[in-house]
Amino acid sequence: MSKGLTKRSEDYSAWYNELVEKADLAQHSAVKGCMVIKPYGYAIWEKMQRALDDMFKATGHVNAYFPLFVPKSFLEKEEEHAEGFAKECAVVTHYRLKGNPDGKGLVVDPAAKLSEELIIRPTSETVIWNTYKGWIQSYRDLPLLINQWCNVVRWEMRTRIFLRTAEFLWQEGHTAHSTEQEAVEETERMLGVYADFAEQWMAVPVVKGTKTPNERFAGAEDTLCIEGLMQDGKALQCGTSHFLGQNFARSFDVKFVNKEGQLEYAWATSWGVSTRLMGALIMAHSDDNGLVLPPKLAPIQVVIVPIYRDEQGLAAISERVAPIVEALKAKGISVKYDNDDKFKPGYKFAEYELKGVPVRLGLGMRDLENGTVEVARRDTLTKESTSLDGIVDFVANLLDEIQANIFQKALKFREENTFEVDTWEEFKEQIEKGGFVSAHWDGTGETEEKIKELTKATIRCIPFDSIEEEGKCVYSGEKSGKRVLFAKAY
Amino acid sequence: MSKGLTKRSEDYSAWYNELVEKADLAQHSAVKGCMVIKPYGYAIWEKMQRALDDMFKATGHVNAYFPLFVPKSFLEKEEEHAEGFAKECAVVTHYRLKGNPDGKGLVVDPAAKLSEELIIRPTSETVIWNTYKGWIQSYRDLPLLINQWCNVVRWEMRTRIFLRTAEFLWQEGHTAHSTEQEAVEETERMLGVYADFAEQWMAVPVVKGTKTPNERFAGAEDTLCIEGLMQDGKALQCGTSHFLGQNFARSFDVKFVNKEGQLEYAWATSWGVSTRLMGALIMAHSDDNGLVLPPKLAPIQVVIVPIYRDEQGLAAISERVAPIVEALKAKGISVKYDNDDKFKPGYKFAEYELKGVPVRLGLGMRDLENGTVEVARRDTLTKESTSLDGIVDFVANLLDEIQANIFQKALKFREENTFEVDTWEEFKEQIEKGGFVSAHWDGTGETEEKIKELTKATIRCIPFDSIEEEGKCVYSGEKSGKRVLFAKAY
Repeated sequence: MSKGLTKRSEDYSAWYNELVEKADLAQHSAVKGCMVIKPYGYAIWEKMQRALDDMFKATGHVNAYFPLFVPKSFLEKEEEHAEGFAKECAVVTHYRLKGNPDGKGLVVDPAAKLSEELIIRPTSETVIWNTYKGWIQSYRDLPLLINQWCNVVRWEMRTRIFLRTAEFLWQEGHTAHSTEQEAVEETERMLGVYADFAEQWMAVPVVKGTKTPNERFAGAEDTLCIEGLMQDGKALQCGTSHFLGQNFARSFDVKFVNKEGQLEYAWATSWGVSTRLMGALIMAHSDDNGLVLPPKLAPIQVVIVPIYRDEQGLAAISERVAPIVEALKAKGISVKYDNDDKFKPGYKFAEYELKGVPVRLGLGMRDLENGTVEVARRDTLTKESTSLDGIVDFVANLLDEIQANIFQKALKFREENTFEVDTWEEFKEQIEKGGFVSAHWDGTGETEEKIKELTKATIRCIPFDSIEEEGKCVYSGEKSGKRVLFAKAY
Repeated sequence: MSKGLTKRSEDYSAWYNELVEKADLAQHSAVKGCMVIKPYGYAIWEKMQRALDDMFKATGHVNAYFPLFVPKSFLEKEEEHAEGFAKECAVVTHYRLKGNPDGKGLVVDPAAKLSEELIIRPTSETVIWNTYKGWIQSYRDLPLLINQWCNVVRWEMRTRIFLRTAEFLWQEGHTAHSTEQEAVEETERMLGVYADFAEQWMAVPVVKGTKTPNERFAGAEDTLCIEGLMQDGKALQCGTSHFLGQNFARSFDVKFVNKEGQLEYAWATSWGVSTRLMGALIMAHSDDNGLVLPPKLAPIQVVIVPIYRDEQGLAAISERVAPIVEALKAKGISVKYDNDDKFKPGYKFAEYELKGVPVRLGLGMRDLENGTVEVARRDTLTKESTSLDGIVDFVANLLDEIQANIFQKALKFREENTFEVDTWEEFKEQIEKGGFVSAHWDGTGETEEKIKELTKATIRCIPFDSIEEEGKCVYSGEKSGKRVLFAKAY
């Protein structure tokens, strides 16, 4: 328990909050509900961004930037969308301050009132589709495959760093297509990209599925999602991909001439992941000693700590370490040699454990003599001594092994915590204990609402791989054709 | 004059606006003063970001993220800073909309009024120094070398895409140091980074210098800047680096224990460049045919256009081109093979000229027979035929040559348009004609203001390389120790 982190088993929520702070990931800011993402946390986010951006570009998308401000009238145009976001809008009403005529400080200048209020974007469908109107005339202009990295604001009353904050960072893809089928395929393709990213980079196994109508994005015809399971048995939605049909094209009058020469509304998708993924990353893998980071997203993949008594000893170790550092860097591995004299090795070990550095090499005088090095793995907390010769390849392989192991561990946890239940009693009991609960549902919003009211569980998704089978709704006893996935969720 | 671009000599301003639009760089949005950065423009900005970010990291800086919102009371804390920004603040006063009780649409919910107004950050010194208070206790915590990439809002009445917009994208570095000297050195180091970026990547020669007190950043002790000269003879400030002294540390009470065990206020710098650089890039190099991009920032560095009569011809060309494309990519050169059948070669040529692609390769049937290829340079608009063998190295060298040539051309232009003048008559005449005007100034704000009033010229900077010499102020006739650089500016 380095730095006195609360144990997960004692208070999972306190453990999370403490870890976010002590591992230097982020902190609350002076503005209620907004966070400061600290350099170490931001370095992880940058790695996520780079990987996702490469995947977006590999699937034909380009980046662009649209304004922060949404005129109120834009938000009003798509009715469901407006309803969905109205309650969490930060509203700009004035564009100037002036000296306080009654004394010190500044006041809002009443003469500088905007004729129309501007909303800080909670999401950019409206601004973007208003722009697309000018970009889309013919089927030749389609598809438009555009992504934006930016900040958005949704005024939340109960906030939690990374998981639910008033301002957060995200990417939002907005695509326009000439056919419904192409848009549906895009929606699925991008969910696939998200699932690949979650599993291959974050090492978080996810269930791919469809949201129920109640849980859809405001303005979507269909919302697909990936759902992860955290160590406390709660689900976390990691990303969503929406098929928007022609809703926004209709609201913003975006028509194109199709191959047959007829005017038609364009078909849309939108998809996004956010800094919420940071929360998923932390909660899926970390332990009572601190962060556990998958090597692919670790800002520092390997740290080398010298263990010495005097300057001469340090010099000898440093000399031996230098070519190893170079060789690791040449392999694209990010490595830090921590020869800071202000702290003892034991302090450093705890610090890097807390920060989730996947591999730690400890090198002392005896190691130098024997040609050995102590290798510590963050994921298993095991140590072994190995030969200094060939340490570079050893580390490279070990990083791959750790990446795979973290994923396998999370997958095993999810498998052990996914339960099929068939009775209401079982259901209530299991939901209370936690985990994914696979159960039959009668397909009605009323039953969904009732279950939520009684157990706080929501339908996370209708999994793509859910098998067609006859069953009875766990709550109402009505007929059901397939199981859906319930859980309490973040 | 592809696509009927206005000539620079006819109307430079119209040329700029048309070019920004027709080359698909950006456009005005529905929100007054805000721009949409289109994919092609954003791809250039991404290249700028990547290069700058690498330079920041190479000089020891890390990225982080701070909130979009500045509480009004924060802005008030540093008096000069508050005065400087109060007039252009977008103010958030409410956090919720609700259905219009009188009819359709949404209205601001008066019950959701913020107890304290929030300003959209015009710059983040106040938010960041309020945070640094918690991060800095001892000299061991210093220096803090942090950068942020984000959007900022300064409400401008007269806007111009990239050059002056209400919302813009930028990076802002905010560093904290234990000594004045270290902060001064940081201020100079980052100006150096900006100058290197401008000259080596943007191919825009810049004058490094110090701003006069009148032109300083609100809250700074000293503002350093780089100034470029555009083709119309107007100057454009490309980046600034501020030595903030202990002003913000004092306003936000950021003290540290120094090596001697005494409490001291931390020393600060801040520095930024923005999407304004896009304006500089466009105006420094482009011509009446369209954009001219330095290869290092061109999203597409080489385009290959096949010239063919039939499908068989296209197939033969495509086969010959494929390994060339691969070989160019392997060298890290971004290349596009445009085999789109919808457009004729002549149309494509004009399009890529407009978009500033540095090198165009044209390959026809006769070229295939002769083993030749036509190489067109965007910077000189010259063409030559060369051997297909060795084309990859030829192109790689040519890109370097173009990068150097664009810079040399801009440097020559600046040299030919920098004038030393010693009388008021000469001064007025030259300022009217345009260019950098190097003249003596008596060092008073009054004279500076008067000259601005009479000629619209401002002191762009006191160049670092200005020679100590006795002279008389061009306006007042008072004593002056060195020349300063005047110009009309964007």
